[in-house]
Order: sequence, then structure tokens, then C-alpha cells
Amino acid sequence: MEKARRILQGDIRTASHLIRDIEDNVPEAKSIISHLFPHTGKAYVIGVTGSPGAGKSTIIDCIIESYRSMSKSVGVLLVDPTSPFTGGAILGDRIRMQRHIGDKEVFVRSLATRGALGGLSKAVGDAIHILDAMGKDVIIIETVGTGQQEVEIINHAHTVVVVLVPGMGDEIQAIKAGIMEIGDIFVINKGDTRGASKLSSEIQGILELSSCHPESWHPHVMRIESMDEPERFQESVNRVVTKITEHMSYLIEQNLLKERIRRKTVNEFVDALKSVIFEPVMDHIIRKGELDKIVDRLMKKETDPYSCAEEVAREYFQNHNDK
Amino acid sequence: MEKARRILQGDIRTASHLIRDIEDNVPEAKSIISHLFPHTGKAYVIGVTGSPGAGKSTIIDCIIESYRSMSKSVGVLLVDPTSPFTGGAILGDRIRMQRHIGDKEVFVRSLATRGALGGLSKAVGDAIHILDAMGKDVIIIETVGTGQQEVEIINHAHTVVVVLVPGMGDEIQAIKAGIMEIGDIFVINKGDTRGASKLSSEIQGILELSSCHPESWHPHVMRIESMDEPERFQESVNRVVTKITEHMSYLIEQNLLKERIRRKTVNEFVDALKSVIFEPVMDHIIRKGELDKIVDRLMKKETDPYSCAEEVAREYFQNHNDK
Repeated sequence: MEKARRILQGDIRTASHLIRDIEDNVPEAKSIISHLFPHTGKAYVIGVTGSPGAGKSTIIDCIIESYRSMSKSVGVLLVDPTSPFTGGAILGDRIRMQRHIGDKEVFVRSLATRGALGGLSKAVGDAIHILDAMGKDVIIIETVGTGQQEVEIINHAHTVVVVLVPGMGDEIQAIKAGIMEIGDIFVINKGDTRGASKLSSEIQGILELSSCHPESWHPHVMRIESMDEPERFQESVNRVVTKITEHMSYLIEQNLLKERIRRKTVNEFVDALKSVIFEPVMDHIIRKGELDKIVDRLMKKETDPYSCAEEVAREYFQNHNDK
Repeated sequence: MEKARRILQGDIRTASHLIRDIEDNVPEAKSIISHLFPHTGKAYVIGVTGSPGAGKSTIIDCIIESYRSMSKSVGVLLVDPTSPFTGGAILGDRIRMQRHIGDKEVFVRSLATRGALGGLSKAVGDAIHILDAMGKDVIIIETVGTGQQEVEIINHAHTVVVVLVPGMGDEIQAIKAGIMEIGDIFVINKGDTRGASKLSSEIQGILELSSCHPESWHPHVMRIESMDEPERFQESVNRVVTKITEHMSYLIEQNLLKERIRRKTVNEFVDALKSVIFEPVMDHIIRKGELDKIVDRLMKKETDPYSCAEEVAREYFQNHNDK
């Protein structure tokens, strides 16, 4: 398959087109992903999340720099599920990362879905496969952490970095997003400003309260220097990258990375099976305008959900087999 | 159907057995629910949630009292998804509500699932149908609000009451559970103790921050008196019940109750269709020990999720049709 071959050679244009097709739920995209799948599983995936304005993109820019100085290739996915109107913000992020624009080993793409609800996490999974197949050593996923969907997205990562900044009610934001439970490393931006040490100890406090597995990884809270001094800021981020490597080693040593990948593989297969089996039936019902009629009948109590579902399934598979 | 008939007559023993069968995922239970379904949709469903120790059961006891004084019959479901080891706590709750134990118009049952993950919300839906078919005017669902699953459960309710108490870090708990977004009425227990007014204004503040629909119901924060004076406590709870009725009227006036019921009906049908179509295939794979083999093949990159899912589905439906 020509397109798959080109992506495996690292072709940026073909990869970009395929990511767009994934966003648009183009059926052909699935078969290309199938071709790429055997070549995936080599990249290390880092999730970076935090409220808008916390400084995620500046930090990611320096994480890229840090990995480039180790000659690692980097792929970045900027995911913003909150609104279809934030294209501008994402564009802004990409501009902020433009110092790597001429570097062929750095590939930055934004990701959104115009399609159905709940599909974004799956799209992120597929996009990770694409970047992985392109041969990127490290893949960074950026999300704005404010809801359940973002937590699902960030769950694709092996190491999750939560970026917080003092004075933004971040602790509340973080808890709201359920991020406290999934963060492996907490980075406090503007670590030398007022409120940073208070925020740091608040986060520590919450982490200690919720920690119930004494043998597991203890999430690390790190303060980083002000962005006013680019060199010291870069040094701070280098320390974050060292901590990421430490976390990766921990996962490998404890056999947790393999376990995590196995769990993700089960989910990926179950999702695929569901979509192969269930979606055609559901599509058929919606296309024929049956769903509204069914719900009307149910609301009038003319039938009940189970009997109705069995009837619909029987009918569908009968017609399907007759063809 | 004999059992369905008995439940429609309000038979407590048959209803209790059916709830137990729902918990155990006994197949026969589905067909009884199907028989009951046409007789449902009359009860008003109230969700009560909050941290352990917030005083939910004492308040529910008084809510029951309040409705009984209006000659309404009441069903109560105590749901505790957090742990299989909390049977004691639930029993404790039931003991606290025992002043209604001789009242035939009050039916209190605890609910847990020994079965699969994610099934508890569905079980709650079915149990509500049972209590509804029994002819209960009001159904109260109690959950301990500490996670995503509880939010799903409480979504079965038409009006959601969140119980908070000062000095327990409740605001953090509430936000964590995503309860701030689903609460229609916030009740602050021990409203005359220190910290109650601070908690009240904190909750108000969060509500104002997150309120983006000026035309919609503005969640109400109410402080209730100390339990030390039973009569004044009951009077406080009576005011909560008045507010519940106000919320119900609002939902009906704005046509929101019908919309809510419609949305729930869609979900119920989609869940039923999924279980009718997808579960037999998944059960078959697990029973034959295929899932582990599939995941092993995927992890060795011998196949990919889509191709494998298509293969599995094709094989299943072929064998299924040959029979």
C-alpha cells in the first residue's frame, strides 16, 4: 500500500493527510492504519495537560529541544476537544513552537474531530499509531485539562505531565478534571513567583491523601524557573525530561509498561469489535429514520427496550443474510 | 406473567427477589422488566448524593417523613458502588431509616452489583423501573458521591440533591465527583455550625463561575438546622422537599422533564441494543479463551485491531447462521 509505505518512510504530507482523514472519519483511513499497525509500539508517549495559560506550549517547546539535543525525533499532537472555535488558539500554539519548524525530525499537528462524540480519544489513538509508524522516538500529546474526555485522551500516554501555575485556581481545575489521579509528574510553572510554594504544598497534600499504594510510583512535584530567563527555563525543563526518563525506567522495571500496553490493546480491540458489529446496525437505524420512531414507541410504552432491541437486531441480521 | 403481576400489585417479596436477580444479572430478570416497562414512568425520581458522614441517610429519613405526611408512597434505593466491603455501612443506613419499617408504603432496598464493571448504572435503571411499577410516587436514590460512576447513577434522577457538611473538605469532594455540575439543590447539613456560611458562599461562588445558561435553573444552596433538634431539623428538610417540588414544576413548565426522559429512553434503547448485539459475541470470545490469544497476537503485531475484529465478527456470524 503506497500511502502506508510513504508514512513508514516518514513522509510528512502523507501523514498529515491521513491525520485529517482520521479526523473526518474517512473509511479508507482504517485500512491504512491496519497496514501501519505492525510497525508501531516503539515510541514513548508523553501526555502534557493543564489549564489554558498554564504555559504548556512553552514547556513542550523546551521538551522538544531537550529530546533533540539527545538526537531523538519528536512528534507532537495538539488536541483541543473543548470547542470547535479554538482553532486560533491551537494555531497560536503552533506558532510558539515554530523554532523547530525547519527541523525534519519534529512533526507537530493539531487534532480535532468534526465527527461523533467520544470519537476523539479513538482518533488520538490512531494518530499516535501514525506518528509511531513514522519512526518518532517520542510522541507528546497536549490537551487542555478540563473534563472527562481529556482524561481519556491523556490515558494514551505512558507518562503524564500536569502543568500548573500559581494564582489560577489550578488546584481546583486539576481536581475537577480528575487529573490528580493520572498525573505522574506535576510541573509548577513560574515556580519563583508568589504562591508557587503554597500551590506546591497543596498539590503534595492532595497527592498524599489519595495515595493508597505505598509500593507504586509516587508522583513528583517540580517547580520550574521563570520563562524570563530562557537558559534557566530550559535547564528546568531538562530536569523534567530526566524525571520522565526515570518514570519510564520505573514502568519498565516494574513490568508496568507492558501491562499498560496490554490493557490499551484490549480496549483497542474491543472498540474495533464494537464498531465493526454495532455501528452498522446503529447507522442503519439512524439512516432509515427509525431511531426517533423507536423512541416514540418506547415513550408511549408500546414496547420495551429489550424486546425492541431484539426485534431490531433480528430484522437487521435477517435482511443482512438474505443479501 | 405471575411475577410481574405480583410486583404491579406492590408485592415486596417479589420485588426484592427481582432486584437481587438484577444485581446477579440473571437472564430471566430482563423479561420481567420488559413486562413491567409499560407500567413505568409515573414516579418522580430524586437523587441524593454526598460524602460518607455528610448525613444523607438522616436527611433521606426526613424526606420520606415529609412525603408520607402528604400521603405519597416512597421507594428508596441505597447504592454503594465504591466497595464490596461496605455492606455494613449500607445496613447501618437501613437501620437509621427503620422508623418507616412498619410502613407498607415505604420500600427501602440496597443495591450493589457483583457483576461486570459499568453495569451498576444499568442495574439502577432497572431497579427504578421495578419501584416505579410497584406504584411508588417518589423514588429516592442514594449514592456516595466520589467518582464518575456515581455521577452516572445519579443521572437517573429528575432532581439531584447534594448533601455537604462543613469541615470535611466537601467542596473538594464535590468538585472531584463532578457533582457541582449535576446538583439542582445543595443542602448544607449542620448549617448552624462554624464553617457553614463559608462553605455556603464557596459553593455559591463555584456555581456562579460555572453557570453559563442564564435562562436555566439556578441551583439552590440551602442550610439546614442541626439534627439535635429533631422538629426543627424536620422543618428544614420539609423546605428542601418544597424546593424539590419547585424544581419539578420548573422542569415540567420548561418542557425539560420530557426532554430528560427522552434522552434517557434513547440511552436505554442503545444500551439494550448493544447488549443484544455485542455481548453474545464478546461472551463467546471470552468463554472460548480467545481474548487472551487475540491480545497476544496483537501485541506481537501479527494482526491489527480492525482486521482482527472483522475476522472475529465474520467467523461468529457465519457459525451462528449455520446453526
